[in-house]
This record gives sequence, C-alpha cells and structure tokens, in this order.
Amino acid sequence: MSGLSLKGALKDSELTIITKAGIWIEAGMVKEVGDFDALQQKLEGQVEVQLLEGDFVALPGYIDCHTHIAFGGNRANDFAMRNAGSSYLEIAEAGGGIWSTVKHTRACSQTELQALTEQRAEQLLQQGITTIEVKSGYGLQLDEELKTLRAIAAADQHCAADLISTCLAAHMLPKDYAGTAEAYLEEMANTLFPQLISENLSTRVDAFVERSAFSAEQAKPYFEKAKALGLDITVHADQFSTSGSKLAVELGAVSADHLEASTEEEILGLAQSDVVAVALPAASLGIGCAFTPARRLLDAGASLAIATDWNPGSAPMGQLINSASILASMEKLTNAELFAGITFRAAQALNLSDRGCLAPGMLADFVIYHTDNYQNITYLQGSLQPAAVWKNGKKVYHQK
Amino acid sequence: MSGLSLKGALKDSELTIITKAGIWIEAGMVKEVGDFDALQQKLEGQVEVQLLEGDFVALPGYIDCHTHIAFGGNRANDFAMRNAGSSYLEIAEAGGGIWSTVKHTRACSQTELQALTEQRAEQLLQQGITTIEVKSGYGLQLDEELKTLRAIAAADQHCAADLISTCLAAHMLPKDYAGTAEAYLEEMANTLFPQLISENLSTRVDAFVERSAFSAEQAKPYFEKAKALGLDITVHADQFSTSGSKLAVELGAVSADHLEASTEEEILGLAQSDVVAVALPAASLGIGCAFTPARRLLDAGASLAIATDWNPGSAPMGQLINSASILASMEKLTNAELFAGITFRAAQALNLSDRGCLAPGMLADFVIYHTDNYQNITYLQGSLQPAAVWKNGKKVYHQK
Ligand SMILES: [Zn+2]
Ligand SMILES: [Zn+2]
Repeated sequence: MSGLSLKGALKDSELTIITKAGIWIEAGMVKEVGDFDALQQKLEGQVEVQLLEGDFVALPGYIDCHTHIAFGGNRANDFAMRNAGSSYLEIAEAGGGIWSTVKHTRACSQTELQALTEQRAEQLLQQGITTIEVKSGYGLQLDEELKTLRAIAAADQHCAADLISTCLAAHMLPKDYAGTAEAYLEEMANTLFPQLISENLSTRVDAFVERSAFSAEQAKPYFEKAKALGLDITVHADQFSTSGSKLAVELGAVSADHLEASTEEEILGLAQSDVVAVALPAASLGIGCAFTPARRLLDAGASLAIATDWNPGSAPMGQLINSASILASMEKLTNAELFAGITFRAAQALNLSDRGCLAPGMLADFVIYHTDNYQNITYLQGSLQPAAVWKNGKKVYHQK
Repeated sequence: MSGLSLKGALKDSELTIITKAGIWIEAGMVKEVGDFDALQQKLEGQVEVQLLEGDFVALPGYIDCHTHIAFGGNRANDFAMRNAGSSYLEIAEAGGGIWSTVKHTRACSQTELQALTEQRAEQLLQQGITTIEVKSGYGLQLDEELKTLRAIAAADQHCAADLISTCLAAHMLPKDYAGTAEAYLEEMANTLFPQLISENLSTRVDAFVERSAFSAEQAKPYFEKAKALGLDITVHADQFSTSGSKLAVELGAVSADHLEASTEEEILGLAQSDVVAVALPAASLGIGCAFTPARRLLDAGASLAIATDWNPGSAPMGQLINSASILASMEKLTNAELFAGITFRAAQALNLSDRGCLAPGMLADFVIYHTDNYQNITYLQGSLQPAAVWKNGKKVYHQK
C-alpha cells in the first residue's frame, strides 16, 4: 500500500496485490516484498525460508489508533440500563457512568491495571493489531494519571504489540476536584506534562472537547502548553457538538477523533488540513447513534483512520474489523479506504512513519489470514479471524 | 424465562435469574431447574452430578429462526463493489448478484451442499445456537430445490444442532424460467409441495414478497395452497416496500421477516396478530441500511424474534449475538427483549413449543458462558464467546 495517497478517497484498484508473494525480513524490518520465486532465487541459501502452504493473505499489521483499554471495573449494567431507556442521570444515580470507571481504575494497583491492559492488548493482537494506542483518563489526578501511564508503559514491555500511550488527563472535569475546569487543566499541564517528558511516559496529549467535558476555549491553552513542550496533540472532537475539530485544525493536531456531529464546515476544515479524521464506529454501535461521516470526509479529501475506541462506557466490543466493516457498509467505504484507515493512515494519526505498510524499511508487522481472497476479511465483517500475527519479524500469535 | 409474555415489551426485571442454580436433565429434557443445593438434596445418589466451578451463566440454547446457509459460492466481490458504490446492475454484469449464488449452488452436488451447510451450522452452534432454521431458495427449479432440501435434511442428521428447513422456492423468479411468475409459483406448488410432505422435507413455505421478487397478489394463491396442505407459512416482508406483512397477517403466517420498511400501519397490523415479527439486523449491517423498527414493534405489542439471515449476498457475517446486540443498542431493546427474541419468541416463529426456555418438559438445550453477569453477553456485543453448548442434555461443544 506504500504508493497510496495519505489523503482522500481510494479505489480498490489502487491496492497493490502480489500473488505468490514473499516478504524478505531482516532485523525485524521488511527488506523487500515481491514475487516469491524471484526473492528465493536472489537469496538462495542466504536466508531461512518459511513457507505457507495453501491459500493465505498477508496485510500490514493493523494499527488501532484510539483506545481506552487501561481501565478497571465493568459497565455492563450501565449498558443494559441505557438500552432499557434510562437517562444518563438515572445511570449515574445507580452508581454507573464514567465516574464508576474512575473509581474502579483508582482502586486498581499499577500492577493490576497493567495486567488488565495486557489482557486487552492481547485480545487486540489476536485480531491482527500490532500497534495499539492507549489513553489514560480514568485517573483524573496527578498520581492516578501517572499510575495509569506507568501501567501502560509496563504493559508495553510485556506485550508483543507496541502500546503507544496518550495522556488524557483532560477526559472530563473530575467531580472530586474542588475548582474550575481552567484550574484543573492548568494544574495538570504544570505538573503532569513535565513528568510525561522526564519519565518518557508519552509524547501525546488528548482532551475531550465537548459540552460535558471541556470547551475549546478551556482546552486551547492546555494544548498550547503541550505543543510548547514538543508533545503531539489529538482531540476528542465533534462527538455530540462541534468545536473540537476546528480547534484541532487551528492547533495542528495529529488527529481529531469521533466527528459524528461534524457538518460540512468541519469536514472541509479537516480536509484542508493535515489532521487525520478518526472514525470510531464501535462507539456508534455501542451508544446506538449516527456514524462518523466517513464517506463525506474522504470525498472532501480528508485522511480517515478507523479505530475501536475500546472503552467500558460507550464502546465495549473492542472489535476492529467487525466495527470497521460495518462502518464500510453503512458509509460505503472501499476496502482500500478501510485498510488504509487501520494501517498507514492510522500510523499517520499516531505520527509514526515506520509502520502501516509492507515496504522496504518498515517494521515487519503483518497479519495473515487463511483465505484465498483479501475481500473476505471485510465481507465476513469480523467472522474471519487471523491465522497468524507477526510483529517485528517474529510470529507472536497463531490461531489454535 | 418461562413466565415471560410471548408478545410485547419486556423489562429485565421480569427475567428469572437463579443464582447457584442446577438443571436436572432426564432423557435429553429439562426435568427441573432450581437451586442447586435443593436439587442435590432431593436427588442425592440418584443422578450424575456435573459441577461448574467458578462463575458461569447458563441460558436457553439460542434459536436462529431465519438463515440461508445452504448455498454455494462466495459474494465477497459483490460486497466490495457495493461498498465502492456500484449499482445492482453493475454487480450483476460483473457476474455477481443472487444469480451467481444460484449458479454455484446448482453446481454443488447434494453432498457438497450438505457439507457446506454442516460447516456453517457448526459455526452457529459454537455461538450457542442449538436450533437453526435453513431455507432453500438458490435452486429455483424442482430438482434443485429438492436437492437443497435433501441436503439440509442430511446435514441435520450430522449436526448437533437441530436444522429446521423451509422451502423458499419463491425466493425470486428464476431468470432461466420461460414463463410468468404466476406460472412458476403454480408449478412449484403443484410439484414441490407434495414432495415436501411425502419426503418429510419441510413443514414450512416461505416467499419473498417484494418488488424485485413476487407481489402479494402473486404470492397469495401460492401460500393458500401451502396452507391447504397443512404447511406453515412465513414471509420475507416489507424489506424495501410494504405489502408482505399485511399478507402475512391476512393468511395467519407464523412469521413476517425483515420489516425494515414497515410503517405504523404494518406495525399495528402485526401487533394485533399472532404473526412473529422477525428482525434481521445483520442484513442492515451488510447492506448498510435502516434497522427493523424493533422498538416500535414491541411497544405496539408485537412478538419480536431476531435472527442472523446468514446469506452470501446481504448478510454474510452470520453472527447472532453481535448483530442482535447492535440492534439492541440502535433500537433500545432490553436484554429480556433481546434474549426472548433469540429463544422462546424465535421458537414461536418456528412453531416449536418444546424449546426456547429452561423449564420442565423442554429440551435440555443451553449455552454456558464463563462470566459472572449475563449482561456481559450483550454488553460485549459478541466478543464474549460461549464456554460450552448443550443439546438434548449432552455437551456438544466446549471452548478450546
Ligand atoms: Zn475515546
Ligand atoms: Zn432471508
């Protein structure tokens, strides 16, 4: 897929499909991809050959560029109440809502949170996802946010997949914080940001720009401090009301995520910028609401990534191919657009240039299916599971 | 769930949940369900006890009351073309569309078709589905419809799940048939219906009432002949245009399936009848269209079942919990309504009174999950897979 455009609509005919292909791996990287016989002739006796007999398809390892998998607790009862027609308030009164996740996450030790994160990362890996973004944001105070980010860093050491952490201390205003939103964000920026850098915990800062969380005016100085420290910024934007994506464009964020409420104005703004638009269809499937206008974003010329948003409140399924394939049916996305959205365009959303396509110099991360046609992956909408997953040139999972 | 109403809205508080429960099985049937300790005391030494240690939840075996899994071929390319914006005509010109499935199904021997049906039935069984309706309808001529129905009957002999076959010779007017729709239906009724009965191939007749298939006027005499022979009737109704569900009500069909296009008038008609409304959310997820108005059907007082509609054209995923849970989020269905829709209300749609709930005298069909909360099944929208499946009192699947 290396020749495909980073922005705009893509046709399936633009995909590079090599039949009877070989991948030459050296030191965990792709050295060359091409015709198997030609590679074998060139390298005869110099490399170890691993043959796949039968019909297999290999794609670049998937990149899930938006998750919240470092959490404690379970919100199944919230979910049941919401489907039964209960209001946000009734759910909160029954002990549910995001605050229950904050309580359960705070109640976890760092080691417990690490273990939960690893378990979920392993489930994503088995779907073919070799790079997983993980946000903090259920700590909502300095020490708890640090605990979460340290748990993610520790989990990364044990996971075959790469975990890319993002500081989302600005997930919402903690209800146990006695002060204003401005004061909370200022305190976090002043105390947490320096730690991110000194402990090498994250290079990315996110904020939830929404009526129920922070306004664009409140988030702006927070993001500007992050940028001044050299941190990348990413925005939870336009989920229920607009303003987040405009801020993302104004500040040159790497991505603006959600966008279910984006109108033509926001779509054009994103398309004319280098901000990657990230669709989170599992959140639409979890809440039961409209999908991100993915088709219009692509047609306007935006870069579109697709991620699971795996979180206990709105997107508990954590299924990338299932939710992305459903988005593709609903929004009429080509396979090229879908796979771009979970490979090289997702890499772009994470500001990573070493992965997302199978080309020389890239990490040898790939997912293998036992099928004769790559179209089956999206056709079966998640029912076809990977036969094997490779990370940095090593097989890290195979189907039992 | 034995005490739950066959029709209308259901609250989760109406579900009977027994903690530390036991199921007393005798001769493949449920003899009693209740408190484990009480059952053990009563039956001490008289029965073999199988203990599940840890947190488990058992539910009645699911019933998928609408599938088309007896088919040959693959329509992944159709799917990709549709998502890429191609029209029905362009897909047909590229060799796709339902006619390609007819060609590939006709090209299968009865044994091949049986094997394909068994493979798919096994995948459904592993989801906890112990009763699977299977339609013919890709044969579209006497001998090919018979081949399909015989393949389903043979598959039923080899599958742990019960396969309930339905004659859908009236799926569409075959394009190689030189005559009118009326003449085709008359021929099928005169030649195929008697065979259904004499060979014991099916007790159910279905027709696709839709602009692209058969009008209500054309289908009516066909259905009346089926009824006169004592066959149950079921209708593909109101998918894109209305009229099918009214015919279903008029003729006293066991079910009217699809209903995405049903308006208030059709909804009321169904609610005031004993016709089970069958939602097929995977078809909405496959095509990318609106969902069956499940909430309004239930609120009006209808009985609602939910099925996979697994077929190669519009619903290739074949995932019951995943698609039903998504419908629940989108339409705001309670867990009780969802589980009723895939258990006892689905049994009602198949006119089966021996299954669909765990109560004395019912088949001992059940699905077991390794979880402490039944709400997790729908919360995780299909990610939680069954630990084991029992059919007729025997364990027929357990997770590896
Ligand atoms: Zn999020
Ligand atoms: Zn159907």
